[in-house]
This record gives sequence, structure tokens and C-alpha cells, in this order.
Amino acid sequence: METWDAIRSRRNVRSYTDHPLARADLERILEAGRRSPSSTNWQPWHFVVVTDRQQLIDLSETWRGAGHVAVSAATVALIGERPSDERRRDSLQYDLGQASAFMMLAAADLGIGSGHAAVGDQAIAQRVLGFPDEYVCCYLLAFGYPDDRPLAPLRSPDRRPFDDVVHWGRW
Amino acid sequence: METWDAIRSRRNVRSYTDHPLARADLERILEAGRRSPSSTNWQPWHFVVVTDRQQLIDLSETWRGAGHVAVSAATVALIGERPSDERRRDSLQYDLGQASAFMMLAAADLGIGSGHAAVGDQAIAQRVLGFPDEYVCCYLLAFGYPDDRPLAPLRSPDRRPFDDVVHWGRW
Repeated sequence: METWDAIRSRRNVRSYTDHPLARADLERILEAGRRSPSSTNWQPWHFVVVTDRQQLIDLSETWRGAGHVAVSAATVALIGERPSDERRRDSLQYDLGQASAFMMLAAADLGIGSGHAAVGDQAIAQRVLGFPDEYVCCYLLAFGYPDDRPLAPLRSPDRRPFDDVVHWGRW
Repeated sequence: METWDAIRSRRNVRSYTDHPLARADLERILEAGRRSPSSTNWQPWHFVVVTDRQQLIDLSETWRGAGHVAVSAATVALIGERPSDERRRDSLQYDLGQASAFMMLAAADLGIGSGHAAVGDQAIAQRVLGFPDEYVCCYLLAFGYPDDRPLAPLRSPDRRPFDDVVHWGRW
């Protein structure tokens, strides 16, 4: 798919068909995340890929907004080292945002929908995912084929008007 | 350009030709940012686009790592409301990361290079950009045509190995 179409097609997908994701497609999504830029190229991430239904259901209980994880074809958990100060905390969040966008756009390119979730209960996440104590599971990205309509460029996305967001030269 | 090529072609570009960016290309980059997802669709951003050389030079003085802003064809300043608590601070950073990735990939699709900078001196940024007191300039994204070689898919990006980053099922 053309990049501009993928950018305009990505939407928040939280309901998925039963169709599993091909291993090669999952690997491409993860490779997009791996290639994402980060501050001084520190790459502060580990990605844990979950496709087991019981694990997905358990993960969905980490946050009230994570119900769609339970029914996803696969979910990628974004895990980072617990930040030592505010500056690194900001960078971790910003860089995880970049990696998330790379993965979601790589998915959209393949017709695969995606939906974020924050993570509340770290104890559940750690039990399900098995990451070391000095790490924290920051986000879950759920993937799957949309069960309503295929991804296609959105004509009128639900966003603030361009001229409210963009300032030329000065605010 | 195909999405997968854009994802693999984006690299950190900090040296640019004198060629200006077409207004339509800049608008597409900004539109990609506007369409980016954000927590509960709060869209916590304003984008100020700077192409005036003196403004770019002044902006480059906000941070020791922002020298490339001075020689960019255009720089987009990402501005957000000063966060009221840690949770919103995390979300702001994460969502600015997503918007940055959307803009950089839209640029790569057009053969336009990009390079991030953090912002240290808010007083300079505010003087140059004119944003209200309750806002903060979080990042600068510099854009321009690469002056060394055109963007093309990177075969071996400088990243941790795939199997170090990715865990299947459990860490």
C-alpha cells in the first residue's frame, strides 16, 4: 500500500475477526518497531508478542480500556526499563510513541487493524509476560483484521481542523 | 512510495540541500501529524511551521543538539499544553512521539529527510514562536532534502538484533 494511504487508513480498531496473523506479517510489524528512531538511538524497548488466547484474556485485565486485547489476533506488549529520572521518563514515552506508530502503520499497510491500551496493573502484566523486575510494561498494541470493514483511507477523520492545529511562522 | 519502503528509508537526516519544500508537501506532512492517534483522541498538539532562515537559526539555539534546525528547509515545532500531572505528561510525550513518526514517515514517502531535536531553552522558543505561557515547546522536527544521498531502504539499520528486541509468548 502507498504510504499516504496507510497513514490515512490507520484507525482505532478494537474488534477483530478470528483470522490469525501470518508469522511473516507479525515479523514485519515488529521489524518496523525495531527500526523506529529513538533518542541517541538508545532503543529503550522490548516487544513481547502474545497470541495465546488465555494470555490475551489475562493481559486484557491489566486495564479497564484493554478489553479488546482479549479478542485480538495478537498483542505486542511494549516494555521499557524503569526510568531513572524525568528526562529519561519523557524520552521513554516519546520513543515508545514513535515505535507504536511505526508498528501500527506497518500493520495498516498489510490491512491489519490495531488498537492501543495503557497498562494499569503491572503485577498481572509481569505474571503473564515474565519480564524482569526493573522493567515496566507501558503499553499494549492489539492487532487483528477489522471485523466491521476493511481499512481504507478516511476522508474526514475525527480531528481538530487543520487550521486550528497548524500555525505558519508563528503561533 | 510503498509504506514498507518509507519505513525502511527513514533515517536521521541532519544536513540538507538548499532546495525548499513545496507548500503542498509541507501540508501533507502536517496533515499526517494531525491524523495521528492520541489518548482518548485529545490531540494535545499545536504545530508551528518555520521556514524563515533567521527564525530557524534562532530556534537552533534552544538546544545543543539542534544545530541542524538552522540549516533545515523547514522545521515543525511540536507544542503542547503544560501537563497538569504525571499521567498526562506521559500521554503527551507518547502522543507527540506518535505524531512525530507519522510526520517523518509522510516526509520519507516524499523523499524528504527529517531529524529530531529536543528543546532546552523555552524562553528562546517562546520568543521565536510566540506560543502562550501555558504551553511548552517539546520537540523540533527539521525537514529538508538530504544533501548526501537520497532516502532509500536501509539494509542493515544500526539497531539491536531482532531476537534481542522481540520475545515470543513470554520474555
